[in-house]
Amino acid sequence: MRGYLGRGSVFRTLANISAMTPRPVSEPRPDEFGRPSAHAPGSATVAVIGDGQLARMMHTAAIELGQSLRLLAGSPDASAAQVCADVVLGDYKDLADLRRAAEGCDALTFDHEHVPNEHLNILIANGIAVEPRPSALIYAQDKLLMRQRLKELGVPVPVFAEITSTEDASAFWAKTEGQVCLKTRRGGYDGHGVWFPESEEEFCQLVSELTAKDAPLMAERKVALDRELSAMVARRQSGEVRGWPVVESVQRDGICAEAIAPAPGLDEKLEAQAREIALKVAEGLGVTGVLAVELFEAAGEISVNELAMRPHNTGHWTQDGCITSQFEQHLRAVLDQPLGATDATAAVTVMANVLGAAEDPDMPMSERVAHVHQRFPQAKVHLYGKTHRPGRKIGHVNLCGEDVAETRHNAQLAAGFLVHARWADQDADQAS
Amino acid sequence: MRGYLGRGSVFRTLANISAMTPRPVSEPRPDEFGRPSAHAPGSATVAVIGDGQLARMMHTAAIELGQSLRLLAGSPDASAAQVCADVVLGDYKDLADLRRAAEGCDALTFDHEHVPNEHLNILIANGIAVEPRPSALIYAQDKLLMRQRLKELGVPVPVFAEITSTEDASAFWAKTEGQVCLKTRRGGYDGHGVWFPESEEEFCQLVSELTAKDAPLMAERKVALDRELSAMVARRQSGEVRGWPVVESVQRDGICAEAIAPAPGLDEKLEAQAREIALKVAEGLGVTGVLAVELFEAAGEISVNELAMRPHNTGHWTQDGCITSQFEQHLRAVLDQPLGATDATAAVTVMANVLGAAEDPDMPMSERVAHVHQRFPQAKVHLYGKTHRPGRKIGHVNLCGEDVAETRHNAQLAAGFLVHARWADQDADQAS
Ligand SMILES: Nc1ncnc2c1ncn2[C@@H]1O[C@H](COP(=O)(O)OP(=O)(O)OP(=O)(O)O)[C@@H](O)[C@H]1O
Ligand SMILES: Nc1ncnc2c1ncn2[C@@H]1O[C@H](COP(=O)(O)OP(=O)(O)OP(=O)(O)O)[C@@H](O)[C@H]1O
Repeated sequence: MRGYLGRGSVFRTLANISAMTPRPVSEPRPDEFGRPSAHAPGSATVAVIGDGQLARMMHTAAIELGQSLRLLAGSPDASAAQVCADVVLGDYKDLADLRRAAEGCDALTFDHEHVPNEHLNILIANGIAVEPRPSALIYAQDKLLMRQRLKELGVPVPVFAEITSTEDASAFWAKTEGQVCLKTRRGGYDGHGVWFPESEEEFCQLVSELTAKDAPLMAERKVALDRELSAMVARRQSGEVRGWPVVESVQRDGICAEAIAPAPGLDEKLEAQAREIALKVAEGLGVTGVLAVELFEAAGEISVNELAMRPHNTGHWTQDGCITSQFEQHLRAVLDQPLGATDATAAVTVMANVLGAAEDPDMPMSERVAHVHQRFPQAKVHLYGKTHRPGRKIGHVNLCGEDVAETRHNAQLAAGFLVHARWADQDADQAS
Repeated sequence: MRGYLGRGSVFRTLANISAMTPRPVSEPRPDEFGRPSAHAPGSATVAVIGDGQLARMMHTAAIELGQSLRLLAGSPDASAAQVCADVVLGDYKDLADLRRAAEGCDALTFDHEHVPNEHLNILIANGIAVEPRPSALIYAQDKLLMRQRLKELGVPVPVFAEITSTEDASAFWAKTEGQVCLKTRRGGYDGHGVWFPESEEEFCQLVSELTAKDAPLMAERKVALDRELSAMVARRQSGEVRGWPVVESVQRDGICAEAIAPAPGLDEKLEAQAREIALKVAEGLGVTGVLAVELFEAAGEISVNELAMRPHNTGHWTQDGCITSQFEQHLRAVLDQPLGATDATAAVTVMANVLGAAEDPDMPMSERVAHVHQRFPQAKVHLYGKTHRPGRKIGHVNLCGEDVAETRHNAQLAAGFLVHARWADQDADQAS
């Protein structure tokens, strides 16, 4: 629509509408608590396995589409369960609970990658539209398999190796001249499960401790990275793919702290390459729904670090800075509906995470929000209904603007106030 | 932010943050069906009396703010009840039901104007923050009182009179030289309760029929209107007011069919006057929450037609075309929280209503949505989870663009397809 949006999304659309007729939708039924049908007749119902903020934000997108979600939630006061009418309480590792959640739904999707694939395969055999499928999900679950597959696809990844012994470790140490990043193959998140050993001894020590605990491992070259990027796309079963502008993702202590859209000063060729990679991964792995490809930029080259097959923290900016948010797009994609335009609506959008402070300030959160809204009427505050824990993701702030530095500065101030109940640019005693 | 947004909202902000510290928030409790607490601890809970699309869309705004609503709903499958976790079933005319909904909430508000004020006054006496208050609501409920009060405030309204007899009718007929619009003082909506008698006899006949049915009446001059406008603002108890750009509201058969933001080609002086009127009405009547002032434009002058003290159909465009939507703003306002920026984010945004067709086409709604998304990837479809009835508001489409004519054309095509399952610009047999 606008000049600065003119980079055009990487996407493939479908010429033939008949290929995208959605599946017929199912009949509603009462919820766990005997409450009558909570879904509009004739609307699609997506079952979401998970009860966190990603499911919560999918629900707001679902509502506006005339739909409503069914959740499989671990507890009735979890982030998404607070705001959904149809909540199935249960365990995502339990097949019977998964079945109850899936029953009568038009598609089943996730807000995390931890559902056992053997259960999902049974659901698929029973006719449930599981999106994305385990055949794709496996590459978001296992960092080693992912790198092997990406290498086959010709997608750049840092040099890597499976590590099953201290011998493997020593060999990899030599090969990378001590530039080593050790990772558990599965179950890591927010930097847990990632180590940078500083000596061969430390590396071998780590490897023997972790293998003793039966943690499957891999190592890759420690990249001298200039910054991290994220390339996101959505793909649906019929084949349509649409990509968002590539963003810069600012990590602190292994956690995404900020996303800046579009990535400031990103070389056009690299941007195109990042988009091509995301497209190739989505198609190559047969991903359905939203795919986030986390990338390293180092010395003018990019390589893939991590995949997520669901809405992703680096895509939260799309809620307020883009025609179609990642949450709406994910629902459309898993229902095999035509995808939405992904143009940015502002010159720059910055997302700053609200991460629980070491100690929660006394000022109630609603009062902190009031201060932020008072100072920044243009800030979009998103909170997840979660209680405080140090480092916990409890919300984010989106801010649109014209100037990267100013928008970042203000987004950081706003998120910082929600965390610390003080303005980083003011004396403590001025803050009240 | 952008050149074309430079008109600057009419608003008053507050210098002193202490004046806007929100009320302390209350403790959650189980819902109707014995389901445990559905609200985040420490978050505000707004009770909404009503279960329609306005409540539904308030809920999506609430979720993103980290809140969740409690609804007083007439049925568990009503539009908003489908998507809310905390639903109290009951009758908005019943004091006991209102009390149950209000219990422990931080503010109580509405998606319609039909709650008896005597009940609201009792709730207020019991310490409930009812927003807006009956002292303001009365002017959205009674068209005669509204005009009398607006006249006192110096706000332009067409010539009007109370009509209690055929004598009153004849006198008003003479005074306006037969340019008469007759209205029931209360309970009208979407053009129901509005008549344009073509002769004095017809007018007197209508008046005697309606007075026989005890319908209190008023008449006003039938305006030779060029078009209708809507000026919306939000105001909170502490006094802050923010206005949105003035929009053109296109009515068909007494129902809002489209809203075009900003109103195309609106004279700057008239725009300023429209904003001033909305501000004056909000402050003069002590409105809290969102206020819509429906206006007539005729021969370069504007006058007030109607007030609504809640989110309004002519404000739906703000969901996709504005920094702060009317639904978010309403919640912030009724909780006496600082208001959000109201700048438009696109050169033009068109909202087209989806009104049930005389006969509902066979094609399922989800398939119609797929066609619309396929043709217009940039269209934002909002559906309310309602079943079909002729003329019923079942959804709307928002479309942003650069050019008014093109954006209107496309928004109409999209909404038209959702209604009729065919493209107005194609032959019927091409549509499948
Ligand atoms: N090979 C590497 N070279 C340099 N830094 C790395 C490397 N691998 C990971 N990191 C750093 O560690 C952070 C976390 O790594 P990674 O993304 O693999 O872990 P994770 O726990 O899966 O995190 P997330 O949940 O954020 O995806 C990265 O964002 C990056 O900053
Ligand atoms: N005085 C008038 N002169 C000319 N047209 C009028 C007049 N009053 C009302 N109308 C027309 O009738 C329509 C409906 O009138 P009004 O808004 O008073 O009714 P309502 O039932 O309260 O509608 P809504 O629910 O849309 O506010 C107006 O939008 C306008 O098109």
